Amino acid sequence: MRAIYFDNTLQLLTNHAEPVPAPDEALIRTRLAGICNTDLEITRGYKGFFGILGHEFVGEVVQTQNAPELVGRRVVGEINLNCRRCATCRRGDPTHCPHRTTLGIDRRPGVMADYFTLPTHLLYPVPDSLPDEWAVFTEPLAAACQVANQLHLRPTDRVVVLGDGKLGLLIAMVLQLTGCDLLAVGRHRDKLDILRRRGIATQLANEQIGYQADVVVEATGSPAGFAAACDMLRPRGTLVLKSTFHDASSLNLSRLVVDEITVLGSRCGPFAPALRLLEQRLVNVEPLLHAVFPLDDGLAAFEKSATPGVLKVLLTV
Amino acid sequence: MRAIYFDNTLQLLTNHAEPVPAPDEALIRTRLAGICNTDLEITRGYKGFFGILGHEFVGEVVQTQNAPELVGRRVVGEINLNCRRCATCRRGDPTHCPHRTTLGIDRRPGVMADYFTLPTHLLYPVPDSLPDEWAVFTEPLAAACQVANQLHLRPTDRVVVLGDGKLGLLIAMVLQLTGCDLLAVGRHRDKLDILRRRGIATQLANEQIGYQADVVVEATGSPAGFAAACDMLRPRGTLVLKSTFHDASSLNLSRLVVDEITVLGSRCGPFAPALRLLEQRLVNVEPLLHAVFPLDDGLAAFEKSATPGVLKVLLTV
Repeated sequence: MRAIYFDNTLQLLTNHAEPVPAPDEALIRTRLAGICNTDLEITRGYKGFFGILGHEFVGEVVQTQNAPELVGRRVVGEINLNCRRCATCRRGDPTHCPHRTTLGIDRRPGVMADYFTLPTHLLYPVPDSLPDEWAVFTEPLAAACQVANQLHLRPTDRVVVLGDGKLGLLIAMVLQLTGCDLLAVGRHRDKLDILRRRGIATQLANEQIGYQADVVVEATGSPAGFAAACDMLRPRGTLVLKSTFHDASSLNLSRLVVDEITVLGSRCGPFAPALRLLEQRLVNVEPLLHAVFPLDDGLAAFEKSATPGVLKVLLTV
Repeated sequence: MRAIYFDNTLQLLTNHAEPVPAPDEALIRTRLAGICNTDLEITRGYKGFFGILGHEFVGEVVQTQNAPELVGRRVVGEINLNCRRCATCRRGDPTHCPHRTTLGIDRRPGVMADYFTLPTHLLYPVPDSLPDEWAVFTEPLAAACQVANQLHLRPTDRVVVLGDGKLGLLIAMVLQLTGCDLLAVGRHRDKLDILRRRGIATQLANEQIGYQADVVVEATGSPAGFAAACDMLRPRGTLVLKSTFHDASSLNLSRLVVDEITVLGSRCGPFAPALRLLEQRLVNVEPLLHAVFPLDDGLAAFEKSATPGVLKVLLTV
């Protein structure tokens, strides 16, 4: 089968062996895959991952032993393959299972191929009313929903979302639904306009002086975002961290102590509410979709995705 | 009057003018003052503070217009002088008042003198059963109580206190009272023994591998404490930060995101519960008291306090 494969160079393989599902897994035909910043980071060495890339997908279940009702269904799926047996899994923190692998990111072949496999307990059927081009946003939208999952956001809260990349835009759209006093801060007028057209207040990053937010969500993808987020927070406010980085940077955490700030690290999120928000069209992912390439042009798609200003690039399989 | 004064050099003044209380303030005669790490930091340039040092005290109210019932009483007092009018004060966060000054730390003369003044709303009468040498620990013990004030510590939680300085020891003694599964980690066997004698499990810092704590309180006073705390925390655990530093250090916060860790900055705390714990002898501060000097020997007291291994040094006035 075909596969977008990384082993220090990114390449399109045409003769990769088809995967064989384990008894608790489904064999899935990829319909659509999204390119995420994490994929770009991997091609720069993040996680030291070698293999088939991709973790954002809509697929069709071809074969499975343990969940026959899924055969022929369109599905999306969670990306952390947990053991379901350890104390962390039993405590209800499957995304933190110490034995987990991660689809297309950490010791598990990804979805940018004709076929891949995933345990059936991680799959969610896609409602018929949801086109593939919407459903493929379920995974990043789930990561946005995770903010509301971890933190009680009050409709009276003053909230800032820092960063106007794909994740920042999705987070702003989700948080707007709480009725909170929301401000989106970014570096790109055209990206902020996607939010402005939905009625969200926006501001360019260089104007952010003296704001006293109850909550700041840091999704800039840049180490400088941490200090910028602190600058906009009131004492005893909450800083939600969404950005991950390769390298350490120079930071002084004394400010967290003096202002008694709470920092909340936030990663992968729940799929069910993300699917509901998409199905009910409570968020609009269409303006985030910038290009669709066939899998055979996967390398060009990665190049496009890395271009400044470009949001989501998809691969049809 | 006499005063321990810092203006790039530490000195004992003998002819400093006596302070005059404002209408909402009390004139207080210092009985006993504690030397805190913050005082030592100030003598190394922290906060750029010039003036009379000291913020830990037991004093006797000499004169006041607005609270005559306090005259002649022994008192302790909070150290953040808030405005009582701004939105932060009205919200109930007086220690975060943006207009605050801080006793002996930030634009407000301290207590290491014959007399000082403080607004009466910040004063707490000391119960008769509490000797000065205990009551002088109210302020640092309040900072220890602040951990329990900010965070719901469950009796079933696995908790680590990192750091065996004065604050770390007080925090461990307070957290022990929750019934939690507590481990104190430090670098000094003799200091840890103070806790061990109270039944608290202790461990030298170089042994801390693979611990999965629900809560880690970082009170090492060293930037390296942050990574060490993360190492001992389970995914989705809480790291309480108590240490403040001069300088930035090299940190990577990605770990907070990947493990969805909550970081809670924690500073000054509530005096009333600290006084209750002292009065009811639920903590024992005696082993923390290493030396008492007369005010006239204040410079020698600072020297003693800066000696490695020395815990609390007091000044009698």
